[in-house]
Amino acid sequence: MLLKEETLRSEEVYRGRIFRVEQALVRLPNGREGKRDVVRHPGAVAIIAWADSDTILLVRQYRLAAGCELWEIPAGKLEAGEDPAACAARELVEETGYAPEHLTEITSFYTSPGFSSEILYLYEACGLKVAYGEKDADEFLEVRCVPWRTALEWLKNGEIRDAKTMIALLLTAQRRSA
Amino acid sequence: MLLKEETLRSEEVYRGRIFRVEQALVRLPNGREGKRDVVRHPGAVAIIAWADSDTILLVRQYRLAAGCELWEIPAGKLEAGEDPAACAARELVEETGYAPEHLTEITSFYTSPGFSSEILYLYEACGLKVAYGEKDADEFLEVRCVPWRTALEWLKNGEIRDAKTMIALLLTAQRRSA
Repeated sequence: MLLKEETLRSEEVYRGRIFRVEQALVRLPNGREGKRDVVRHPGAVAIIAWADSDTILLVRQYRLAAGCELWEIPAGKLEAGEDPAACAARELVEETGYAPEHLTEITSFYTSPGFSSEILYLYEACGLKVAYGEKDADEFLEVRCVPWRTALEWLKNGEIRDAKTMIALLLTAQRRSA
Repeated sequence: MLLKEETLRSEEVYRGRIFRVEQALVRLPNGREGKRDVVRHPGAVAIIAWADSDTILLVRQYRLAAGCELWEIPAGKLEAGEDPAACAARELVEETGYAPEHLTEITSFYTSPGFSSEILYLYEACGLKVAYGEKDADEFLEVRCVPWRTALEWLKNGEIRDAKTMIALLLTAQRRSA
């Protein structure tokens, strides 16, 4: 079955600091024309970081888009041309003050492919050492060491409501019980 | 620790069919001012639908934002004021041609709270009956009955790369093995 949409024209209708918005005119599979709005995002990384074999780092942050504070694993956007692993190491230091000795890519996925190009690279970090990282001037967050069992409980009782964090915990839980 | 950001001013800088973009000026926790770009999204539903006790429905769709075809569970946006459960039943019929006898909410989460307000309500559907649903004129998708074991394999080998679908499969796998 032919599903592909061919872009006939594309226009940037908004350019912000974090994402751009494109309005595209596409040729639909049935030959007609259609319009699509796309958020163009640079991509991001997120890190499940082990303080010890049974403790992970979570960060609590006010998210204006959600209108509330959320518990999330450390994460951040890719700089232009930045390697995702380098970005993961940088963001972990910036957000938590720890540099990872070992960093392993777990998976990558689209966070909301219906309208956004954001792809998220998920890493696991261990062997954390205290390090100095310049924080973003407009980023305010609380870092907490959370026992693995507590994190799983927060996943179950809805305290954790962020997709990337849910995927990181669920994949890790699966691996730990295998 | 004070994390909340207070919105001082907010301006709509783009309004599309699916989302709006707002530029907000906020009072940061340290008293300074900061700027935030937010994608305002109406919210969405996604449905893990059982054709029988070991077979789920997946849809394959070209996603312009991702630039490729993806396997996903059936999903769709909330209409203004629409109840998520009603939306889930409607979208399942529209996308697959099946109406659910039973529909249960599993969880809800933010798909990318760093910049988007989208909240996704995840449902499980069973007792599927053939039904007629008007398809969206600009939506082209392939519906396939996929054995549960195959879906888990696709999750593992990276064939499935959509966050909501990953969460649905991982939560269901956890429940089925409990």
